[in-house]
Amino acid sequence: MTQTIPKSIQRLIDQLNQLPGIGPKTASRLAFYLVRNQNTDIEELGEAFQNLREDLVYCSQCHNIADKDPCAVCADKSRDDSLVCVVEEPLDVIALERAGYRGKYHVLGGRIAPLDGIGPKDLNIKSLLRRLETNKEIKELILATNVNVEGEATAAYLMKVLKPFDIKVTRIARGLPVGGDLEYADELTLSRALEGRGLMMSK
Amino acid sequence: MTQTIPKSIQRLIDQLNQLPGIGPKTASRLAFYLVRNQNTDIEELGEAFQNLREDLVYCSQCHNIADKDPCAVCADKSRDDSLVCVVEEPLDVIALERAGYRGKYHVLGGRIAPLDGIGPKDLNIKSLLRRLETNKEIKELILATNVNVEGEATAAYLMKVLKPFDIKVTRIARGLPVGGDLEYADELTLSRALEGRGLMMSK
Repeated sequence: MTQTIPKSIQRLIDQLNQLPGIGPKTASRLAFYLVRNQNTDIEELGEAFQNLREDLVYCSQCHNIADKDPCAVCADKSRDDSLVCVVEEPLDVIALERAGYRGKYHVLGGRIAPLDGIGPKDLNIKSLLRRLETNKEIKELILATNVNVEGEATAAYLMKVLKPFDIKVTRIARGLPVGGDLEYADELTLSRALEGRGLMMSK
Repeated sequence: MTQTIPKSIQRLIDQLNQLPGIGPKTASRLAFYLVRNQNTDIEELGEAFQNLREDLVYCSQCHNIADKDPCAVCADKSRDDSLVCVVEEPLDVIALERAGYRGKYHVLGGRIAPLDGIGPKDLNIKSLLRRLETNKEIKELILATNVNVEGEATAAYLMKVLKPFDIKVTRIARGLPVGGDLEYADELTLSRALEGRGLMMSK
């Protein structure tokens, strides 16, 4: 087979191909797009990759990835200090920010996953308990780990270790997604939606 | 809203977001993956982007993007010189190579698309005619433009200008994709599949 792809293009394809969610076809399409589309500044694009990990720190309070310690959220005096939302990953913080959440966070750095060899000790749980001991402002902890087996197990574990604390602990609601059809919902989601039903009117 | 995403991560997200097929969510996911996954050499990845357009030339014979002129396919003496496959883009060459095609190519550099202001003069058609005039080895031209309105229009236009030449011109078959169900095929594909039916046995 003739080597039809120029070396510099093949190199980028190989590099892109190792990224999650980018298969060989997407990689080729992207690389050839960039060859043709001279408007894209590949110099700038390449630099953005190379400088990605520069000056990144983990916030010593909430363990989110940040530019400086404490992070912008922890340093923000205008945010609700009595509310702490416990999430698995930094990406979850972004999702909650988009949803309009204005309290503080605590990033666990993963979830309890025995199959992957990740136990409670590998997560930022000790520092959460320490935070609760030292900061008496905190009134409510929202457990916002993912709604899957591992996320639920992590939430259950947290419930157990949080029992001694005099604090309100809540779990994000599980139910039908907005725009979701009852007809297409799986039975677990539907049973959760029933359990978590809210009062509309009472006589 | 607090700026929760560190600057270096936001910069990469913005850069990735301008690429085709990568939306804001995929961009965030990729960027945070690269922050966490220290195994990925972001230096190398960035360089691959920056060096992408280095040393790229267009082959003066087939107009494919290549490392040198003539390209590897045109220079390859072992390939069938009597067969030239006319395609729209360099990506199509890769697809045909994968499919095991071993003739030569001619890359048009696009398709006739009046709505985008692209006419026959913007494509490498003149050089195709010149190639046919000078290279008497060529016996068959396979029109492998895409099977959509613009690709078919381009093929029809090529048929017209190729008429004066004493050469066999064929079009890639249009029909059901392998693994395709009759039931789910659209009527145009099905009517093309009927038109293009092949003889299995005759009495």
